[in-house]
Amino acid sequence: MSDFPKFVEFREEGPREGFQIEKTIYPIEQRVELIDLLSETGLKRIQVGSFVSPEYVPQMADTGELFRRIKRVPGVKYSSLWLNDKGFRKALTAHQVDVDPRLLFYASDAFSRKNNNCSAAEMRERQHDWVRLYKAEGLVVDSAYVMAAFGCNYEGQIEQERVLDDFRFILRLSKDEDIPVPILVIADTMGWGNPESVKRMIGALRDLAPQARIAMHIHDTRGLGIANVYAALSMGVDLFESSIAGLGGCPFASHSYARAAGNVSTEDAVFLCHELGIETGIDLEKLIIAARKAEEIINAPLMGRVMHSGSLDRFRKQG
Amino acid sequence: MSDFPKFVEFREEGPREGFQIEKTIYPIEQRVELIDLLSETGLKRIQVGSFVSPEYVPQMADTGELFRRIKRVPGVKYSSLWLNDKGFRKALTAHQVDVDPRLLFYASDAFSRKNNNCSAAEMRERQHDWVRLYKAEGLVVDSAYVMAAFGCNYEGQIEQERVLDDFRFILRLSKDEDIPVPILVIADTMGWGNPESVKRMIGALRDLAPQARIAMHIHDTRGLGIANVYAALSMGVDLFESSIAGLGGCPFASHSYARAAGNVSTEDAVFLCHELGIETGIDLEKLIIAARKAEEIINAPLMGRVMHSGSLDRFRKQG
Repeated sequence: MSDFPKFVEFREEGPREGFQIEKTIYPIEQRVELIDLLSETGLKRIQVGSFVSPEYVPQMADTGELFRRIKRVPGVKYSSLWLNDKGFRKALTAHQVDVDPRLLFYASDAFSRKNNNCSAAEMRERQHDWVRLYKAEGLVVDSAYVMAAFGCNYEGQIEQERVLDDFRFILRLSKDEDIPVPILVIADTMGWGNPESVKRMIGALRDLAPQARIAMHIHDTRGLGIANVYAALSMGVDLFESSIAGLGGCPFASHSYARAAGNVSTEDAVFLCHELGIETGIDLEKLIIAARKAEEIINAPLMGRVMHSGSLDRFRKQG
Repeated sequence: MSDFPKFVEFREEGPREGFQIEKTIYPIEQRVELIDLLSETGLKRIQVGSFVSPEYVPQMADTGELFRRIKRVPGVKYSSLWLNDKGFRKALTAHQVDVDPRLLFYASDAFSRKNNNCSAAEMRERQHDWVRLYKAEGLVVDSAYVMAAFGCNYEGQIEQERVLDDFRFILRLSKDEDIPVPILVIADTMGWGNPESVKRMIGALRDLAPQARIAMHIHDTRGLGIANVYAALSMGVDLFESSIAGLGGCPFASHSYARAAGNVSTEDAVFLCHELGIETGIDLEKLIIAARKAEEIINAPLMGRVMHSGSLDRFRKQG
């Protein structure tokens, strides 16, 4: 039998995922408008942008300015991404960033080298330093990611055991450094997971860490995104990272239409939850408005579906 | 535990579903080219077009000509749709149509009135005549559809009991008319199903007709298409109707982007099967080529995903 959670939390990554892959730099006013719309939906955490090298990712160069301009809704956290201590320092000193300290692990060595210019093993060892860095600032580690958890466009299939080994490392690390076990995030960065491999991974991880909260970061690169959310829900997962309208994607992968590699769409995943009778605290109609704004900004059809067809509640009322 | 079939059959509906919703009438050469590409993929049945009123659906007016122009691959059936006996007569007299007699039922009265200009009850009674019509031509009924099986944009939610009642009628009909039980097709015409309602429906239908073959016609209107395929697979369903590149949709529904209401994409569903270790007899790479041709013809991003990102086999080989 399925073991659906009663309530599922969504963390919105669209404003970062979506614009970092675009060649165009969209006017900051438009991105502020999108974030402000998202703030009204009931989402409790929105990733505004990232503090990364403006040389490599010029689209994120004005993240600091974004944080100054957005309208903050009480109860909503406005977070950001960083990939090294320099980025973390920027986040700390920027205007009112809700710093949610993360640990980053790579199940793919090739992907780690692309993203961080160091091996996956080096990156793993560095996480000790990151924990201390966070500690020194009085911050508690929120979550630990294992990226490319099912496969990698550079390295091919990733064995489950390799991912579990990273999670074992995380559990040991939290013990050694005397910090609470963070949220364990299985990140299917390049869309290699399928509903069965997702279930197997969650089952194995739960055996490893029965008390830990498990989350998933899902990309819908090959159309299995929502099926993977469904599979994870059936295993009791109650936290997902997603992107409004399905924004996002890997800027590097050789896709004929880069936007197709985006995250699983927030509104479609929320719609799935609601249809299954799972609460999210999110107003789907407001989410659809935000998704349509995203499409208006990008000015091309995005991959979200409910945003185009409308929710069922609208039709149920008229029916 | 899941009960996946070992082999799944796909019936391709893209050439009909895809072009009937478009305002433009695309050159016949392009549609022939798409069908010819589909013929090379391993698909065993391709719905070329429909014999319906050229007044209401001018896009299908040249279906007869299409049948004359396509290159036939041995072992592939080239079928068509009709909605009344006049259309059926056209199919019979057209050039080499693989006539697969169908029975059509509507779980939604409003939808039946839109599509057939008669009530669902009248349409149901007419199916007796259809059986006799087919019999008189020496044809065996292939499949019986219950459309709008989960909900209807005009009528709202459809109760499972109403759908089962139609299937009970079909079983009685096949007994009364002394014909084999046809394939029972659950058609989610407007994308109201979710993985749990799909599972419940299949379970209930299997209780009703344990020996019958059950198929699904799935629209991905609200992003749950592939999750619904997965749910159906886990219930042992081994036959799906789908559309290349996710072509198709309801021409009437008030969607902001009509193409978003299309069928579940053939290549994404085949990809899912292959990832789950289920055989389809279909060459995914060739399917992707056909999907890209469909997008080239429509000249706008279509909703299929694997066609944009590439299959995993490509990356596995290079990994």
